Amino acid sequence: MSAQAAGPLAGLRVIELGHFVAAPFCTRLLGDLGAEIIKVEPPAGDPVRQWGEMKDGSSLWWSVHGRNKHSIALDLKQPKAVEIVLRLVGHCDALVENFRPNQLSRLGLGDDVLRRAKPGLVIAHISGYGQDGPGRDRAAFGVIGEAIGGLRHLTNHAPGTSDLPPVRVGVSIGDSTAGLYAAFGIMAALWQRDRRDGDGRGRTVDVALAEAVLSFMEGILPEYGALGLVRQPTGARIATAAPTSAYPTADGGWMLIAANSEPLFARLCAAMGRQDLLDDPRFKGNRARVQNVVALDAAIGAWSTTLSAEALGQVLAQADIPSTLAYTAVEIAADPQFRHRGMVREVDDPMHGPVLHPGIVPHVPDDPGAVRWAGQAIGQDTDGVLERIGGFTPDEIEGFRRGGIVR
Amino acid sequence: MSAQAAGPLAGLRVIELGHFVAAPFCTRLLGDLGAEIIKVEPPAGDPVRQWGEMKDGSSLWWSVHGRNKHSIALDLKQPKAVEIVLRLVGHCDALVENFRPNQLSRLGLGDDVLRRAKPGLVIAHISGYGQDGPGRDRAAFGVIGEAIGGLRHLTNHAPGTSDLPPVRVGVSIGDSTAGLYAAFGIMAALWQRDRRDGDGRGRTVDVALAEAVLSFMEGILPEYGALGLVRQPTGARIATAAPTSAYPTADGGWMLIAANSEPLFARLCAAMGRQDLLDDPRFKGNRARVQNVVALDAAIGAWSTTLSAEALGQVLAQADIPSTLAYTAVEIAADPQFRHRGMVREVDDPMHGPVLHPGIVPHVPDDPGAVRWAGQAIGQDTDGVLERIGGFTPDEIEGFRRGGIVR
Repeated sequence: MSAQAAGPLAGLRVIELGHFVAAPFCTRLLGDLGAEIIKVEPPAGDPVRQWGEMKDGSSLWWSVHGRNKHSIALDLKQPKAVEIVLRLVGHCDALVENFRPNQLSRLGLGDDVLRRAKPGLVIAHISGYGQDGPGRDRAAFGVIGEAIGGLRHLTNHAPGTSDLPPVRVGVSIGDSTAGLYAAFGIMAALWQRDRRDGDGRGRTVDVALAEAVLSFMEGILPEYGALGLVRQPTGARIATAAPTSAYPTADGGWMLIAANSEPLFARLCAAMGRQDLLDDPRFKGNRARVQNVVALDAAIGAWSTTLSAEALGQVLAQADIPSTLAYTAVEIAADPQFRHRGMVREVDDPMHGPVLHPGIVPHVPDDPGAVRWAGQAIGQDTDGVLERIGGFTPDEIEGFRRGGIVR
Repeated sequence: MSAQAAGPLAGLRVIELGHFVAAPFCTRLLGDLGAEIIKVEPPAGDPVRQWGEMKDGSSLWWSVHGRNKHSIALDLKQPKAVEIVLRLVGHCDALVENFRPNQLSRLGLGDDVLRRAKPGLVIAHISGYGQDGPGRDRAAFGVIGEAIGGLRHLTNHAPGTSDLPPVRVGVSIGDSTAGLYAAFGIMAALWQRDRRDGDGRGRTVDVALAEAVLSFMEGILPEYGALGLVRQPTGARIATAAPTSAYPTADGGWMLIAANSEPLFARLCAAMGRQDLLDDPRFKGNRARVQNVVALDAAIGAWSTTLSAEALGQVLAQADIPSTLAYTAVEIAADPQFRHRGMVREVDDPMHGPVLHPGIVPHVPDDPGAVRWAGQAIGQDTDGVLERIGGFTPDEIEGFRRGGIVR
C-alpha cells in the first residue's frame, strides 16, 4: 500500500480504554481510515471476544470489531499498569473510553491526570446518558438507552395492529451510533487543535448513547412541543404515502416495494395484472390509497406471495419499480455492488483463515485505507507497543509480566 | 457566546448542495459544532420543508433540520447560478451533496471543476449505493438502502412468530447514518489536509446509505462466511440471554426490562412475588431461561400488564432492575437528564415561536456550540451570503433576481 493510500488518518495515534461495543466501534472506524489504534484490554480480554457465533473458541465478530488494532493487555487495578497507560498516553493524540462515568478517575486516569501526561490530549467519553446530570449512573444497557432515546417506541406496528412488543433493531444500533458520533467528535476536536489557525487545545467529547439516538428523531420534539402530537409507529409502512411496505414472497422472504407515486402505482398494477386496482376509487390518488392501505397491501401481498423472490424481483425490475428483497447475510455476501465497492471482502485472519468482512465506510477513493489485519489475540502486541511507543525494555516488560501487570 | 464556546468547528465553512435527509443532516451536525453552513436550495425549497407535521404551512422538522444554516436559493439549471456556486465554493473548505451520482457533473459542477474553483476542497458525495459500480443508479430510497444493508431483515419478530412484515425503524435511520458518516469523513479529510504535518490535499469522501447500514452489521458477514450461519431476527428479545424484552403495562405502554443475570432475575422474581419462578427448573440458569423464554416472558407480561407504567417503574427501580418505559416524545420532553444536558431545549423560531429542539451531539462541555437560529425561510440569506462571501454587489444580486437565477 502506498503512503498515499494509507487512509486520511495516517499519522494519528489513538489509545482505547474500551470494552463491549461503543468505544471499540469508534476505534474500528478510526483505524479503518488509517489511524494507529492501541487497544488496552484486561488480561481476560474484551467480553465481545465471547459474543456471537464462535469458531475455535473465538468470536467471529471479533475479527471485524478488533481489526487494525494493536491489542495490549494490562491489569488496570494495579498502579503500575496505570503508569504504563500514562506513559503511552504521552505519545497519543486522543483517548476513547466507555467505562461508567467517573470510573477512570477512580483508577487514577481522570482527565486532569491524562492531560498532565499529554497536554492537548483529545478525550472521548462514551456512556449511556452522559458524564454529568441526575441520570448519569443509570444502567447503560443498549436496549435501555435506545428506548430512552425514542427509537424503541417507533420500531413497532401501528397502534392497534398487533399485541406483539416493539422489536429491537437487531444489532447494537445505539452503541454503534454513539461510537460513530465519538469518531466525528474526536476528528472535530483534532481539526481545531491541529490546524494552522487552530488553538492547540485538547477538548473533551462527551457522547451519550441515548442522546445519539435522540439526535436521529427528526421532528418529533418540535411536533410535540408546538402541536402536542406524539409520533407513533407505522410498522412496515410510512404514514403519508402508499403503497410502500414489505410484502411476502413464496419462498419466505420479504420484498420491499415502493410504488408510492402515480406512475409507479400504475406500473405496479400493470405488473400484477390488476388494472382493476388502478380504476378502484379506493386507490385513486395517494390520499385514498393511504386511507385504504390495509386493503391495498392485502391485494399486493396476495400477489407477491405467489412468486418466488427471484421471479418477483424480475417482474418488479422490468416494471422499473423501486424494490429489493430484505437482504440477509446471503444476499449481502453475493451482491455485485458491495463486491465492486470492496464492501464485502475477504480478509485473512490468522485465527480463522479467510473470513468475510464489511468494507471501510466512508469510502475515500483516492486514499481508502485498508484492513491491515483482523482482530488480534489478547495482548498480542503488548511487548511491541510497550517497547516501541512506551520505550520500555524487554527486561522491564518481563518484570511486568511476572508481576501480573501485563499479559 | 464567547469565542471559546463557539464549538470546535468554528472557522470552518461548508457549502451544501443537498436535499431530503442525508446531506442536510450532515451539515446540521457540522453546523451544530460551529461550522458556517451555506445551504443551496432550489427556488421551491428543499422538499423536507413540506414533510411531517406542519404549522402555518411550514414543517416543524425543518426548524431542526435547517438550523444554523444560511439558506440561499438558486436555480442550478441556469449557467449563471452555477457560476455563483463556483464563486462561493472558492471560499469554502468542504462541499456536501446528495444528488444522484454524476448529476452534479452534468450541471457543470464535477469534482474537477469544483477543485479548479477551490484547490484542496474536500468533497463529500452521499448516495444510495456509491458513486461507481454496477448498482450505483439503483433507486436511492431510504427503505431500499436499509433493506440492502441488512437492517430490515433484522427488525422483525423471530421466524415463525408472526405473519406481519418486518418494520421500518420509524425514522430515516439509513439517511441519518450516512449523513453522520459523511460528517466524520469530512473531518478526517480536513484534519489530514490542514494539520501542520498534513498533505494539503482535498480528498473526496464517497458515502453510500446501504454501506453505512452494512457497517453496523456486527459479525454477520464473518459468521456467514465461516460457518454458513445466517443471522435471524429475534423480535423484542436477544438470542442469548433471558429475560430481556419489552413487556406491556396496564396503560398501554411498553416497559423494557433487562433481568438477564442470576441476581437480576432473582430480584425480579421477588418484585413479582413469584418465588416459584426462581425455583422452577425451566428457568434455572440462563440457558434454561433462553430455551423456555416464551413461557417466562408470558409470566412476566401477565404481571406487568396489571400495573401502570408509573407503578411498574417504581417497583423495578426499587428492585434495582435495569428498565425503562419505551419513551415517546412525551417522556423525552420531560426527562430530567435530557433537560440537564441541554438535549431537550427551547429554541426561538421566528416562523413558529418557541419550539423544542434536540440538543447538540456530541456534547463538548468546554466548547459546546449553540443552536444559533432555527431553520430559515427559503433564500433568507441569499443576499447576505452573495455579498459577504461571493463579493457580489446589491445591483448584481438584483439582476440575478430579475433573471430568476436567485430567489
